[in-house]
Amino acid sequence: MLHATVKRNTYQDSLRLMQVSTALGRVAGVNAVSAMMGTPANKEVLRAAGLGADELESAGPSDLVIAADVVDAAVGEALVAQADELLARQAPASRRPGLPSARSLERAVSIVGEPDLALVSIPGEYVASETRRLMDRGIHALIFSDNVSLEDEVALKLEARDRGLLVMGPDCGTARLAGLPIAFANEVHDGSIGLVGASGTGLQAVMVQIDRLGGGVSHAIGLGGRDLGAEVGGISCVQALRALDDDARTRTVVLISKPPAPGVRDDVIGVAETLSKPVVAHLVGDRPQREVDGNVHYARTLEEAARLAVALAGPRGARDVTLRPEQRWIKALYTGGSLAAEAAALLSAAIGEGEGERGDGYVMKSGGHEVIDLGDDRYTRGRVHPMIDPALRTGRIPAVLADPENAVLLLDVVLGHGSAADPAGPLASVIADGLARLHAEGRDIAVVASVCGTDRDPQSLSAQTVALERAGVAVLGDNAAATRHALAILRRRDAPPRPPATTSAPIRRLLSAPPRIINIGLREFAVALHERGAEVVHYDWAPVAGGDPRLQALLESLG
Amino acid sequence: MLHATVKRNTYQDSLRLMQVSTALGRVAGVNAVSAMMGTPANKEVLRAAGLGADELESAGPSDLVIAADVVDAAVGEALVAQADELLARQAPASRRPGLPSARSLERAVSIVGEPDLALVSIPGEYVASETRRLMDRGIHALIFSDNVSLEDEVALKLEARDRGLLVMGPDCGTARLAGLPIAFANEVHDGSIGLVGASGTGLQAVMVQIDRLGGGVSHAIGLGGRDLGAEVGGISCVQALRALDDDARTRTVVLISKPPAPGVRDDVIGVAETLSKPVVAHLVGDRPQREVDGNVHYARTLEEAARLAVALAGPRGARDVTLRPEQRWIKALYTGGSLAAEAAALLSAAIGEGEGERGDGYVMKSGGHEVIDLGDDRYTRGRVHPMIDPALRTGRIPAVLADPENAVLLLDVVLGHGSAADPAGPLASVIADGLARLHAEGRDIAVVASVCGTDRDPQSLSAQTVALERAGVAVLGDNAAATRHALAILRRRDAPPRPPATTSAPIRRLLSAPPRIINIGLREFAVALHERGAEVVHYDWAPVAGGDPRLQALLESLG
Repeated sequence: MLHATVKRNTYQDSLRLMQVSTALGRVAGVNAVSAMMGTPANKEVLRAAGLGADELESAGPSDLVIAADVVDAAVGEALVAQADELLARQAPASRRPGLPSARSLERAVSIVGEPDLALVSIPGEYVASETRRLMDRGIHALIFSDNVSLEDEVALKLEARDRGLLVMGPDCGTARLAGLPIAFANEVHDGSIGLVGASGTGLQAVMVQIDRLGGGVSHAIGLGGRDLGAEVGGISCVQALRALDDDARTRTVVLISKPPAPGVRDDVIGVAETLSKPVVAHLVGDRPQREVDGNVHYARTLEEAARLAVALAGPRGARDVTLRPEQRWIKALYTGGSLAAEAAALLSAAIGEGEGERGDGYVMKSGGHEVIDLGDDRYTRGRVHPMIDPALRTGRIPAVLADPENAVLLLDVVLGHGSAADPAGPLASVIADGLARLHAEGRDIAVVASVCGTDRDPQSLSAQTVALERAGVAVLGDNAAATRHALAILRRRDAPPRPPATTSAPIRRLLSAPPRIINIGLREFAVALHERGAEVVHYDWAPVAGGDPRLQALLESLG
Repeated sequence: MLHATVKRNTYQDSLRLMQVSTALGRVAGVNAVSAMMGTPANKEVLRAAGLGADELESAGPSDLVIAADVVDAAVGEALVAQADELLARQAPASRRPGLPSARSLERAVSIVGEPDLALVSIPGEYVASETRRLMDRGIHALIFSDNVSLEDEVALKLEARDRGLLVMGPDCGTARLAGLPIAFANEVHDGSIGLVGASGTGLQAVMVQIDRLGGGVSHAIGLGGRDLGAEVGGISCVQALRALDDDARTRTVVLISKPPAPGVRDDVIGVAETLSKPVVAHLVGDRPQREVDGNVHYARTLEEAARLAVALAGPRGARDVTLRPEQRWIKALYTGGSLAAEAAALLSAAIGEGEGERGDGYVMKSGGHEVIDLGDDRYTRGRVHPMIDPALRTGRIPAVLADPENAVLLLDVVLGHGSAADPAGPLASVIADGLARLHAEGRDIAVVASVCGTDRDPQSLSAQTVALERAGVAVLGDNAAATRHALAILRRRDAPPRPPATTSAPIRRLLSAPPRIINIGLREFAVALHERGAEVVHYDWAPVAGGDPRLQALLESLG
């Protein structure tokens, strides 16, 4: 039998209502139950679910409805009692005292000073009007809510763009701005990779892999799943791409999306191609012809997008290297023949020339680019292999570092049984010395390496990696990544002096420091942000005018 | 001035001589110096290096020559004294007592019982005759030595093949047989991935990446850099591929090589295509048309070869799942929309059908294969998103596990702020229960997942991973890897009942347990193997007949 109860003027947010519904569903004798606000759309849902009791008719948008199919009236009564008890319980309290809260937007704004961002998770039908109120105060919006009409989305995003503001969402679940994870987001390290994504768990997955591969994230800007659809046309996506190109802490941009509308795909890729920074693109379902096209690198999976981005940006914490115009060449000194061959193949493919004079002791020589396998017979005749005695290589390094035309020294370090007891030690020493000498002259050179080994090897991967990093070496996770990073350094130097895209002053401010946030809707988001130390105020929102849409429209028109 | 000394009948191995040469080079007043055995080839090297003093003429292959360019005669004398002192020092002693050693092959063989493998690092000109003596006793050879003629290599490999024996090398620096790292090799975990490689550091690099990605290695068979050249024609490569297909502990085969001769490339790929197991191939410089062709998967880098192999073989320690013929379908229950879309794209591409009835609540439906995004509005209306409340998904799992036509349950687990406090807990519980019920009926199903998170997330990546693994879930490093593993399980089931390739009884024995080894040449290799607990005897080899090649040939012909 159907059993319904209407609680007048009792607003609860949707997460809370879902939790209550789930708990009520476990009561014995309940076949189906749902607790919802009595909006016309929700009443339609309840009717479609076979829970459309007559009592619902009288419920309005600010009334809470509990509609159930139960075995008898006693169960129905028990259900209501249970619901009262659940609703009486407070939302989880913050463990950290003092989450500020306000009952009006004005009060909320005044508490947080000049808020940068509103995190909006109120029911979809209220989103447009509330977001406009926020934008009137110069506040960007991350709209978590779904059930916002496409028309509202397009209108809001166009208005935002006209004002130099950014609207992320609707249905945007994930972001990270200047180190602050917002809504659904993982704890990753800060770094120089900026992400733009019409894809919530896609952004999460790429951020997580970047972190595992030794990279770090500057920002992750969610767009909502429809931004790259034909109707919205990538309005926020284009704003976000330009903002990351303008952003000082972002070195590499990643663009991910569920399958975009074809025309929009071409538009956003077109914008990506105009950026001054390298872009890694992974658009699910897209099958680009080339792996690299200008500054745009195409990845086949989310993991590969992360891998390419880390190879381009380099490991987190790596020092900044400023090259002079005459520094043009990659010099690779290898101890492993197959690793040298892999580096030569990747460099040749990227530089667009053959592998050159192989027979002359080089695995590759093209212009001033050189890949030398010091384990080759030519170098080891009468000498110990450089995997055993690092001296054969360390002896050559000062000259490579000192040559004013060299841009990158690229190295392999092979650990394991048979190899030197401490291959990184002498390398680190000669590199630190050489770099100190260059720095004293106001010069610099990039040194990039990978370490082939495990932590159970006699030399220990992590110990060897730390020794190299302390000497100023950027250590990548594998040889292909190190080679790609060397190429990225060169490309950055070679790039035509294309100015970075510019963004609006408000968006630049948004990305300049962890944002101050007004949370409107699900209290949990404010609690999580507060516990992480963010400046956040919870605006304890409820629909105005008892949720009557016509009255709301009238109030809005009155200003 | 040139200064040369000849020490008659003083054999020293080449590593030792290189170490001595390097140390002598640091003596003040020495412009150049080399200590070598007086073979004709070495004397040629010294002459070419400008160290061809007259005294060299009288030196024979069993005489040690110290040839130097020094500033004056006194330095020359000091050099000789220094050399005597260096040579008098013993090679580094084993820290572990009792490395057995023998002065004759017969004695060495008797010490170690039935040796499986000889590790040969004597000068190249002695390799062929010594290797034949070993093969006569049914012993396989790993030849580290270089400077073996191509004719000798081809002859030895053909003879070995005829006898069912395996010759790895010459110039083979890396192997791992049944868990034992040999010569230059890293410490990696045991597992089900078998490698074949004409590429020493290539094998090391792939093994290391397999280890980092959670996979493990059964064997790594080095071939020497010329095996895939036109002259040798991949003789050992083909033997090794067949041996790994025959090997019970190998589930996936990896083939890597520096650029092979074109015809040989086609031959070995042709053999790879006949194997019963999946093969990952990375031949530097090769540009195959497709990513997958039958059972052969092509990788573009060494790292990608490792990544594909782990995706195919699954994580080390994963339980074995035996499927029945009627178990045909992958059922993917996702909480993340973008992860579901990525899985659907990879599955559709592999299965060769479109993504099917997307509108019907599926991200993909093709035959009985299904990818469902449980975070879709259709499933979350009036319920908490499954990233927050796992119940929406766990409620569906028992039916998926129980369906006798399902082969794989594929899952994502998303950690981070906003997600459930313990998403793996309820999943692990319902999966463990369901599998226990199936196992009681003699049935099984594969459960494959990836976890999107970091160890700094509130839920902790490693804790969540362990919980899933304990429940019988194979946890891969990312969503694409998990999806590829699900496909690999299906392919193994779908594979035509092609019998595995067979290998000879001696090769099968070689791979059945860590080999018992005779070390001939560089004592360091025996020390390292002994310290790691291997059964090894050092055969304290010196050239017979004073190193006179004609006398040696005569002695050999006499048997």
